[in-house]
Amino acid sequence: MSDVTDVLKQYSEDVVKTIEENLSVIEPQDLQDACLYLTKAGGKMLRPALTLISAEAVGGNKEDALKTAAALELIHTFSLIHDDIMDDDDMRRGMPSVHKVWDEPVAILAGDTLFSKAFEMVIASKEENAHPANVANALATVADACVKICEGQASDMSFEGNFDVKEDEYSEMIFKKTGALIAAATKAGAIMGGGDDEAVHALYEYGRMIGTAFQIQDDYLDVISDEKDLGKPVGSDIAKGKMTLMVVKALAESEGEDHDRLLEILKDDDCSQESIDEAIDLFNKYGSIEYAYNLALENIDCSKKVLEILPDSEAKQLLIALADFVIDRSS
Amino acid sequence: MSDVTDVLKQYSEDVVKTIEENLSVIEPQDLQDACLYLTKAGGKMLRPALTLISAEAVGGNKEDALKTAAALELIHTFSLIHDDIMDDDDMRRGMPSVHKVWDEPVAILAGDTLFSKAFEMVIASKEENAHPANVANALATVADACVKICEGQASDMSFEGNFDVKEDEYSEMIFKKTGALIAAATKAGAIMGGGDDEAVHALYEYGRMIGTAFQIQDDYLDVISDEKDLGKPVGSDIAKGKMTLMVVKALAESEGEDHDRLLEILKDDDCSQESIDEAIDLFNKYGSIEYAYNLALENIDCSKKVLEILPDSEAKQLLIALADFVIDRSS
Repeated sequence: MSDVTDVLKQYSEDVVKTIEENLSVIEPQDLQDACLYLTKAGGKMLRPALTLISAEAVGGNKEDALKTAAALELIHTFSLIHDDIMDDDDMRRGMPSVHKVWDEPVAILAGDTLFSKAFEMVIASKEENAHPANVANALATVADACVKICEGQASDMSFEGNFDVKEDEYSEMIFKKTGALIAAATKAGAIMGGGDDEAVHALYEYGRMIGTAFQIQDDYLDVISDEKDLGKPVGSDIAKGKMTLMVVKALAESEGEDHDRLLEILKDDDCSQESIDEAIDLFNKYGSIEYAYNLALENIDCSKKVLEILPDSEAKQLLIALADFVIDRSS
Repeated sequence: MSDVTDVLKQYSEDVVKTIEENLSVIEPQDLQDACLYLTKAGGKMLRPALTLISAEAVGGNKEDALKTAAALELIHTFSLIHDDIMDDDDMRRGMPSVHKVWDEPVAILAGDTLFSKAFEMVIASKEENAHPANVANALATVADACVKICEGQASDMSFEGNFDVKEDEYSEMIFKKTGALIAAATKAGAIMGGGDDEAVHALYEYGRMIGTAFQIQDDYLDVISDEKDLGKPVGSDIAKGKMTLMVVKALAESEGEDHDRLLEILKDDDCSQESIDEAIDLFNKYGSIEYAYNLALENIDCSKKVLEILPDSEAKQLLIALADFVIDRSS
């Protein structure tokens, strides 16, 4: 896996440089600092790397997709900043979140500025001789993902305290909130790399599926990891009463006492480690951890299969390795 | 003036319909309602009308600019929603503001969604056979205005309690916060209407200048109107210690006792009507109300002059009437 991490780092260097160059003109300085803060804090840069590699996988140059890749990272950063305000999360990337370092108004504005800059950057690709139709398609892809991110976050908030959510509703929410931007990253890369419709569609599907697996894994890592790897207490989603695939599944499969007990634990704002362990036992009893794990695995397998239409290349091999990387991480 | 108001109403009907159609697909319902709330509350629809009339003034059809016009209104609405959160303003368009009807998270998301939808709508113009280069130029125009709006709001917030702000700094802030979007509205209209570079530039300058006049007038109406027309107490900007052109000018022109007294009133969080009247007297003494009025008038005169390169048309006459309308309003 260290190989993949090294490759991600290589790809991310140009992206970070492009972001820093494009944000360096923002005034006043305070707003610029808030805009650059999370990029400087360091992230996995998974989305922009996927954009660049997708451009190469369809036979294009990663340079043609560089501004679009950077834009995808800005959209991701914008959504983190606004989500942290909405969820009142104090920490991000091991540091105080933007609205804690500055204040809410500056954080709202920093998000809005990153959003604006992201579109500006995709548009600016046309100055580097990108085909206008490709730029328009990439923009449409990014805008569509942005609408979905907002809808996904709104659904997620509306699910709070609602334990009647069905699996398909949950899946749609999670696709919009997380998968849509990863799918947009790979699709936009394929577009800017000059891929044909079939290749663009394949890369979208690949992104959608690894995005889904990524999110499902986020859900079950919360209960199968140890605290050291996770960087937070095991079962913290259960403690918060958060809807996850395991909760949706276990509530759907269980009846009577077990169902009632699980609901009770989820609704308890102050539940003990004992109760959390009890909930995890119920997840196991109704096979919901295994179900989640298998669903993630299935998505990864399918994501690799859709790439079969692409000619063999280093970039294609890297996408396959990245699919495995997504599911092999431990935190 | 009622003529201009009637014309604005006519133009706004199609815009409202386009907005409602495009936002009707947003899920969940709560988010959709929050997105549509301020449009339903009714606004002047000045920006989209300017876009449509500008398209006609360069010889194009308003239909070609309809989605772009609607997008401009969405950007305006997005900025109102987020500004109201940042400034904690309870009322907007005579109704409770979005974050008061729903909550801050929903209001942040509604703004973000409108922002995304705005870009989506400009991009969608290409499905109606708009020239891809025009769509790309209109998008760049909108994105540039969005960055400026954020920068302007950040500057405005950084000016709070800072009475050393110079006139050029104030002018730049106010252009970014208000003028840039009006200039983008006229420019984007000219682009979508197929105007040549000279016409597009003229319409941008026209928008920039009426936008500047509009904002300056906002400043001095606060001190020369009566409470009934204004819908708020006269001199409320002074009471809040808000930076306006008159404040910047009077502070720059006055010295000694007058300067100190004006500062004292502006810094007083709880100043009396007597103090407010005293500040207005100082504005008059140093000619700052007259200065602001003349500057607004000058901008309006110039805005009409830049239109001279356009062939005569009903749309051109309407733009001229709108320039006067901007400065003749009483609230």
